Amino acid sequence: MLLTEEELRQQVSKLEGWKLENDILMRKYMFNEYMKGIAFVDAVAAISEAFEHHPHITIDYKTVTLRLTSIEAGGITPLDVREAHEFNEAFEKNR
Amino acid sequence: MLLTEEELRQQVSKLEGWKLENDILMRKYMFNEYMKGIAFVDAVAAISEAFEHHPHITIDYKTVTLRLTSIEAGGITPLDVREAHEFNEAFEKNR
Repeated sequence: MLLTEEELRQQVSKLEGWKLENDILMRKYMFNEYMKGIAFVDAVAAISEAFEHHPHITIDYKTVTLRLTSIEAGGITPLDVREAHEFNEAFEKNR
Repeated sequence: MLLTEEELRQQVSKLEGWKLENDILMRKYMFNEYMKGIAFVDAVAAISEAFEHHPHITIDYKTVTLRLTSIEAGGITPLDVREAHEFNEAFEKNR
């Protein structure tokens, strides 16, 4: 089930650091050490396996970018939003 | 020191799976399990730290793409080629 535009805007406003890129939720996470970014990616991978829903990840030296969407649903669902909250919690533990 | 076009073409032909994308060396690695791709990324990160030279990494579910270039030198150097060989060795151990 997709979120309506209004629901989406409201929920994204509560998601620290996340932005909308058309039908994609995106956040860039910055680290002060390369290996901290890699440890964060390991945490993101474990969360994604638990959710059975995997974000697109890019690692550009100390910057890790996550992009979430639900291709089957054609946009962003409550699952994407819940997962984004978990990634933020993992960031607080790994930063 | 940049490689000449001729040297580059010759060296890339010996690098299994790697292609030239303008001034960038690129390879896509495919895994049959998501967590195998993540373990490979961990190995890539350790190699990059040893080389003090970090590839651009994307993780798209079970596909990990690496891109290597030496921005300071303005293109591909022997260091990029040596590192690509090490990533291929790590892939053979983690696939």
